[in-house]
Amino acid sequence: MEHKLIRKKTRAIHIGKVKVGDLAPIIVQSMTCTDTRDVQATACQINVLADAGCEIVRVAVVDTVAAQAIAEIKKGITIPLIADIHFDYRLAIEAMKHGAHGIRINPGNIAKENLKEIIEIAKRDDIAIRIGINAGSLEKDLLEKYHKPTASALVESALRSVDFFEANGFRNLKLSLKSSDVLTTIESYRLIAKETDYPLHLGVTEAGSKIASAVKSSIGIGSLLQAGIGDTIRVSVTGDPLPEVEIAYSILRALGLRSVGVNIISCPTCGRCEIDLSALVAEVEKRLVGIKENFTVALMGCVVNGPGEASEADIGIAGGKGSGILFKKGKVIGKVMQNDFVETLMKHVDILRKEISAEATENSTPH
Amino acid sequence: MEHKLIRKKTRAIHIGKVKVGDLAPIIVQSMTCTDTRDVQATACQINVLADAGCEIVRVAVVDTVAAQAIAEIKKGITIPLIADIHFDYRLAIEAMKHGAHGIRINPGNIAKENLKEIIEIAKRDDIAIRIGINAGSLEKDLLEKYHKPTASALVESALRSVDFFEANGFRNLKLSLKSSDVLTTIESYRLIAKETDYPLHLGVTEAGSKIASAVKSSIGIGSLLQAGIGDTIRVSVTGDPLPEVEIAYSILRALGLRSVGVNIISCPTCGRCEIDLSALVAEVEKRLVGIKENFTVALMGCVVNGPGEASEADIGIAGGKGSGILFKKGKVIGKVMQNDFVETLMKHVDILRKEISAEATENSTPH
Repeated sequence: MEHKLIRKKTRAIHIGKVKVGDLAPIIVQSMTCTDTRDVQATACQINVLADAGCEIVRVAVVDTVAAQAIAEIKKGITIPLIADIHFDYRLAIEAMKHGAHGIRINPGNIAKENLKEIIEIAKRDDIAIRIGINAGSLEKDLLEKYHKPTASALVESALRSVDFFEANGFRNLKLSLKSSDVLTTIESYRLIAKETDYPLHLGVTEAGSKIASAVKSSIGIGSLLQAGIGDTIRVSVTGDPLPEVEIAYSILRALGLRSVGVNIISCPTCGRCEIDLSALVAEVEKRLVGIKENFTVALMGCVVNGPGEASEADIGIAGGKGSGILFKKGKVIGKVMQNDFVETLMKHVDILRKEISAEATENSTPH
Repeated sequence: MEHKLIRKKTRAIHIGKVKVGDLAPIIVQSMTCTDTRDVQATACQINVLADAGCEIVRVAVVDTVAAQAIAEIKKGITIPLIADIHFDYRLAIEAMKHGAHGIRINPGNIAKENLKEIIEIAKRDDIAIRIGINAGSLEKDLLEKYHKPTASALVESALRSVDFFEANGFRNLKLSLKSSDVLTTIESYRLIAKETDYPLHLGVTEAGSKIASAVKSSIGIGSLLQAGIGDTIRVSVTGDPLPEVEIAYSILRALGLRSVGVNIISCPTCGRCEIDLSALVAEVEKRLVGIKENFTVALMGCVVNGPGEASEADIGIAGGKGSGILFKKGKVIGKVMQNDFVETLMKHVDILRKEISAEATENSTPH
């Protein structure tokens, strides 16, 4: 790689068997939108997320029944689970007792005495805690001091909590400082990264629907990762969480930070395009979901410029009226009829995947 | 604003009546996907793009008929038009003769003598030229020198062309250095910004479908804008170009660079959410399309955390089962039944827009 981002080294924590921080791969998280009390629906959604590459999942704990459901949910899933707690410290304790691998709280909303109780159990059971500072639920005195939830206000809130945890002998921490404002988010993490070496969980909160979130999260998370900041990320999307995982990996792939999944490049289509490229891209995208091998597929709308412009792709099609050209690693390898675009491409994707696996095996065999 | 980006000052050029560079607002561009020879379809698509905020449009010129169509298309549109030329210099000349406000060429693909002919006409008619360097169509000698289209290769190609134009007394230029690789794109523009003061047209090429492009463009364009680099942007999306404009403004809004259009924040929904927030967001997004006033609408899935977390929004709804809360500028202003969420919100959006207009009028009235 020509451009290698230099990551800021943080201390490591573990959520279940997943390491976060200390230059471990940047971990992709998501959060369920099911009713946590519905064990089957929640476990099912977690498994769909895990199949797509989600490595840690968070569930909302609204009451004691939800906290107790964690023990059952865990039986049906393979990735670590974090319990998300608002306000009620008893739910944090209940969630830990029922096997949560980590909890997320906003300590500013919990009385000191109750926090100490949480800390004792987390210490005993070796459970990591995320201090989740959120612009929308800042302590009242900080809001008064800063007038609004500025980056400095978020940082002061986080450091205040960190101090309390450290004073109580607890360092198994991860921090997040989220705002729905992208620039405030970026500034907050930049500031806190200078102040502590705890692993950072990145995210822009209330980012909106798929496209809106893709924009805000890519700018917010993307800028920080480029600055070497961030150990785990969560993209927030309203509704079905599956796109959260897809967008997260797209961000990590674009920055060369995780080589997982297929990168599709496709021209924007212009007056030169003679095929329905949009439909072709949609169909191919669907067929490539869940593939873990990392390679680039090019789908180009014109035979003249296509193969040249996509010469860096591992495999691709440049479509013309009636027929197109199939190319692999910059070389034309055949002509394809329009009706066979998808099937022929997928056949060659399978061959490519086998080649990638064979190469990986060869590289891992001792000589 | 707490965070004010410092823009790099460039020299100004004009595309028709639109100024690009020299700290003018960052201009949003798009490109048609119609057959340029189809005058009505092309003018119609341009008007849809212009309504959404597109400020300069580009059309592909595939042959002489397409070049001649420009004169007719111009009669039906209100924004400046740029002709996109690949290889054939005669089409550039033909497009300029038929009234193109600007042309985009890759000079590396055109013979020197023919380039001189283009320059003479552009000089005579005061037409700006974009030198459009593209990783997929780099000069052969540069590909040999650098082995692949690296950032340095793209920059050398651009500077070589700039030298030729300057030697021929032409400075009415704008530059772009696009790659489908996000990090190469970022690096190329960072390097060229140090070398010249020509206005820069930013874009990640072949960025893919809506979500993929939103991610790559937001990281690529977003990182550069944060570094103060870029005078005009084009987001490439495969298929219908309308999302290009929407994503472009989302990027500019997120960075506080253009105050145009509505910012929607909405929570990711979790186990606490009791309404179909996803459907609500989709409906409200649709209703807010095309609004030019800049304000923030919050759509939250729970009555407990919603109003607090969205206190920075201008207006919002926090939905619960059966009914929800309407809030404005951090204050609860009423209770709304679930069936009336959209209509009530839109009624208050109208009031808000009138307030914004009244305020703008008041501020522009001399005292």
